[in-house]
Amino acid sequence: MTKEHTWCVIMAGGVGSRFWPMSRSAYPKQFLDFLGLGRTLLQQTYDRFTAICPPENILVVTNLQYAGIVKDQLPLLKEDQILAEPSRKNTAPCVAYASHVIAKRDPHANIVIAPSDHLVLKEEAFVDTIDLALRQAAEDDRLVTLGIMPSRPDTGYGYIQFQDAPKPHPRVKKVKTFTEKPDHETALRFLESGDFLWNAGIFIWSLKSIMKALRTHLPELDSLFSEGAGMYGTVKEQEFIAQAYPQCQSISVDHGIMEKADNVYTIVSDLGWSDLGTWGSLYTHLPKDAQENGAVGGMVKLYDSHRNMVHMHDDRLLVMQGMEDMIVVSTEDALLICRKQDEQQIRTFVNDLKTETDDRYI
Amino acid sequence: MTKEHTWCVIMAGGVGSRFWPMSRSAYPKQFLDFLGLGRTLLQQTYDRFTAICPPENILVVTNLQYAGIVKDQLPLLKEDQILAEPSRKNTAPCVAYASHVIAKRDPHANIVIAPSDHLVLKEEAFVDTIDLALRQAAEDDRLVTLGIMPSRPDTGYGYIQFQDAPKPHPRVKKVKTFTEKPDHETALRFLESGDFLWNAGIFIWSLKSIMKALRTHLPELDSLFSEGAGMYGTVKEQEFIAQAYPQCQSISVDHGIMEKADNVYTIVSDLGWSDLGTWGSLYTHLPKDAQENGAVGGMVKLYDSHRNMVHMHDDRLLVMQGMEDMIVVSTEDALLICRKQDEQQIRTFVNDLKTETDDRYI
Repeated sequence: MTKEHTWCVIMAGGVGSRFWPMSRSAYPKQFLDFLGLGRTLLQQTYDRFTAICPPENILVVTNLQYAGIVKDQLPLLKEDQILAEPSRKNTAPCVAYASHVIAKRDPHANIVIAPSDHLVLKEEAFVDTIDLALRQAAEDDRLVTLGIMPSRPDTGYGYIQFQDAPKPHPRVKKVKTFTEKPDHETALRFLESGDFLWNAGIFIWSLKSIMKALRTHLPELDSLFSEGAGMYGTVKEQEFIAQAYPQCQSISVDHGIMEKADNVYTIVSDLGWSDLGTWGSLYTHLPKDAQENGAVGGMVKLYDSHRNMVHMHDDRLLVMQGMEDMIVVSTEDALLICRKQDEQQIRTFVNDLKTETDDRYI
Repeated sequence: MTKEHTWCVIMAGGVGSRFWPMSRSAYPKQFLDFLGLGRTLLQQTYDRFTAICPPENILVVTNLQYAGIVKDQLPLLKEDQILAEPSRKNTAPCVAYASHVIAKRDPHANIVIAPSDHLVLKEEAFVDTIDLALRQAAEDDRLVTLGIMPSRPDTGYGYIQFQDAPKPHPRVKKVKTFTEKPDHETALRFLESGDFLWNAGIFIWSLKSIMKALRTHLPELDSLFSEGAGMYGTVKEQEFIAQAYPQCQSISVDHGIMEKADNVYTIVSDLGWSDLGTWGSLYTHLPKDAQENGAVGGMVKLYDSHRNMVHMHDDRLLVMQGMEDMIVVSTEDALLICRKQDEQQIRTFVNDLKTETDDRYI
């Protein structure tokens, strides 16, 4: 497959409050170097896509508020590769906007849509899998989503149930159902059944297929963005978007299209993937010391401590003794200490801060 | 008693490594505002003594390294009220030096010697007790040390065993023995016996008595400082001290004088006193929330946490969940988390830092 018609859309508008205090509303998770590798999650996502398409075919969709950060972190991007959303409207409007922009530049485009804040450890497998997905999408009218073989009954992920495809390829499966964040018992049943995958939120389709799907399943959204057809890529684009976005329904691609369409396929993938949804999920991907502590950043000295997740900013020193199964995160102005098993409470803490303080810590 | 012959000597040369990471060798404990009151421990000590003697009769003995900090924190002190020691030689040389300086200014002096880094909550009781001690010291050749009624079998304190004095006053007792830091069993026995007090390290005596005691019990030290008799208060004092100090034996007043002399008395005192020797001892003196957490500084939000000692610098935010009986101390460049019951290990941590890093964190 030639790469010239391959386009990659990176979605970088999220807020990431579960990663407080490191992730802040003014500087969320995708702009941070969580693993201490010297590249932020957005930069790593961009780097991965340079192996898949020409760099000028990479678009980043972000909130207007973050456009400056995107420019700073990806200085090779041209002005017209950053699409700025004036408000948060979930993923479907983002996909519609990007599709219309691409339609103007390349009517024969095949498109990969991916979040900017996920972890992918197996880069080669990622490239191979995307390549397979792109071929599926280019050859047939298929909406493809990557499915990760689940390793535990995670209740934080969406699940895809698959069946065998009519034209079978060992890794390509037709999607039967989507299930958002199941309870523990259901997740366990999914895991044991063997025909459920985690939904990685990475979509692959041709421009033609997604345009058709938008017309069919989200006709209002489609007609709203179609009105701007003459303006994408012109000086009027910003103005059009500024008035169109407030009228958009806030809806995800999953709910708006994937759950309704009957041409949805998944590819069974093993990518060393995590959505890095919580500190606990980051912990599972960190190298550990002999006491199973995972530490990033700073200078960390642990005594009689086991299975902790530690994240220190800059060259801050931590001396820690007698701690087990805790999350310890230090940033320039805040410190979080929380039991790993209670990390879902972090959202509550952030909400309490919202009501009880000014917004400086959020 | 007239105050004009009362002199107060504040010893402010200590290092305080048990209060790491807040107390640093370059800026130790006595120069810090531990309780968040807006005055450092040294300033509070000075404030207490202004009720006892004329401000010009207060001397601060400190290490040369800290003389600048003392000047900054006590701007009313004149140059000749700060005695700078060129090296650390424990308390006996400090007492000898200060006594000779005072001898030159006031041969009829009565002197209070006190550490700069202790806590005294009952200020009126302190003034009354010092007043009683000064009368004892002025009227007879007595070396007086304040004794605190013990409230627990603390193994970190020195203990004074007393007997009734020949000329009895209900609170004045003759000292029988000194015992440094007993083991737990011994401390328990001391507590139960009823004739043991904690040694607060606050000494009261006349100039005449201490000079005689120095001559008798530490003759070498005495003759060393006597050689400088013509130089105290002159431009030659610094030079003399610079060559005298390296020759000094490093010894405490307790070992060098109090344990040997037979004219040692103690006054049973209830001062709300603590030597603030450890984070745990600070904890016992802090106001507590309903879950018995004691917190100083910063902005502290606790969830499901009990009996913790928290100290945050500046306006740093702490959100803490699921912690019990821990010490959490945050400073500008370091964070300590340690079980309260294991706080004696903090010295080990600091020693490890000394061998494993440069000195920036110490």
